[in-house]
Amino acid sequence: MAVRKLGRTPYKQQIADDLREQIADGSLSPGDQLPTEAELEKRYGVARGTVRQGIEILINEGLVVSARPKGHFVRERKPMVFRPQAEFRPRPYTPEMDAFMTESSADGREARQTIEVSIVEAPAEVAKRLQLDAGQLVAVRRRVRFLDGEPFNINDSYFPLDLVQDSEIMRPQNITQGANEVLADLGYRQVRALDELYVRMPTPEEVKRLDLSPGTPVGYHVCTGFTEEGKAVRVAVTVLPGDRHVVSYERRRETDPAS
Amino acid sequence: MAVRKLGRTPYKQQIADDLREQIADGSLSPGDQLPTEAELEKRYGVARGTVRQGIEILINEGLVVSARPKGHFVRERKPMVFRPQAEFRPRPYTPEMDAFMTESSADGREARQTIEVSIVEAPAEVAKRLQLDAGQLVAVRRRVRFLDGEPFNINDSYFPLDLVQDSEIMRPQNITQGANEVLADLGYRQVRALDELYVRMPTPEEVKRLDLSPGTPVGYHVCTGFTEEGKAVRVAVTVLPGDRHVVSYERRRETDPAS
Repeated sequence: MAVRKLGRTPYKQQIADDLREQIADGSLSPGDQLPTEAELEKRYGVARGTVRQGIEILINEGLVVSARPKGHFVRERKPMVFRPQAEFRPRPYTPEMDAFMTESSADGREARQTIEVSIVEAPAEVAKRLQLDAGQLVAVRRRVRFLDGEPFNINDSYFPLDLVQDSEIMRPQNITQGANEVLADLGYRQVRALDELYVRMPTPEEVKRLDLSPGTPVGYHVCTGFTEEGKAVRVAVTVLPGDRHVVSYERRRETDPAS
Repeated sequence: MAVRKLGRTPYKQQIADDLREQIADGSLSPGDQLPTEAELEKRYGVARGTVRQGIEILINEGLVVSARPKGHFVRERKPMVFRPQAEFRPRPYTPEMDAFMTESSADGREARQTIEVSIVEAPAEVAKRLQLDAGQLVAVRRRVRFLDGEPFNINDSYFPLDLVQDSEIMRPQNITQGANEVLADLGYRQVRALDELYVRMPTPEEVKRLDLSPGTPVGYHVCTGFTEEGKAVRVAVTVLPGDRHVVSYERRRETDPAS
């Protein structure tokens, strides 16, 4: 924790970096109070305004909450575990994943979601994955999921319109059996999926839909679902703010390459 | 592309947000030139300095490169595909993953890595996953992987010291057969793994090791490997700058829940 003299790094950034590192390595735990502004002022030999700017960076990243006049605290929120494998395998099948889910997932929080269904021209990234021509129509179910009233993530699922236009998928309501089962009933059972995960800063639309600080990076998860014949029938885009999620997978060694 | 009047969003941020969105949705493709500073000045009705600050944000996030006096361009770099499943399943087994790897992965670039081996007290997050007491010793192989001379990612693998202390894992050289095979030869064959992926801003150490802009968010991937008996024998931490990676998994529907 010595004051580093990096010519190129502004002090506010140094202060944010040091505190972020302590949060990352666990020396500052969720719920802990940060050193006071006076302590940080002394430690770094900078003005109070600079200390506040450093803390603002962490508030903006969603790592710290302000509870003045008491001070600043490491955010307590437990991450939500996003487990893409759940759709094909509801229960974890390794003891490690079982333990991880129990330990990490936020229990007892009230979940709800908003759902909007619309018909749109396929965005380029969706058209490409659904093997559609640009401008072809797709149905999209846009959901924002809330925990305890707080927006947690966005899930937008796209389907080729001609496949689903007379189905339950078009209704802006929760689908009890799940959209995947509706697709299966229509003759498009998904047996494989490809997941892509990108890491980037949020777009203004994401900031708005998720009530996010613009300094909070997001995971951008794109899942494409395929039938046995290799037809892509669904693209699900999930936007996962980094301050409130962990993405997790369990894997097993393949003993038989043909399996 | 109308000028938005958001009271709370500074102009430089608006400019960055708009351009980032165009890069994300593909209206600006890799290699494309951004609108000139004069054009942006006019479009937003702001001073040249503000336009430059907006562009600086995107340079800092790794999305844009400056090639003055010609202008600013969308970064061309193709992402590296990080496929955690590769260690247990070298070849993809779905046609979709095959196609995705071929299309997305950066071919023909020269790969090299630096390797340092040291013995350290287990960091808290490693000790917890290896079921060690705090302060117990672990061997760590720290690698930085380069493509065409540019640092791409960090991979730090931790092993309980008593398991590996007389093995090839302790030598700071490439292990031809892979560390997992060395562990298997020692009697600790990994048959399962748990992956966790977090999204956050980089630490100063990561910025330094990866020659990263501090505004580039990173994926922080933690893989814990287990033997048949459930003993954790390896924790591999991979730091993936968001501007140069996509993490990808292939999944299949489980037909037999007991399998």
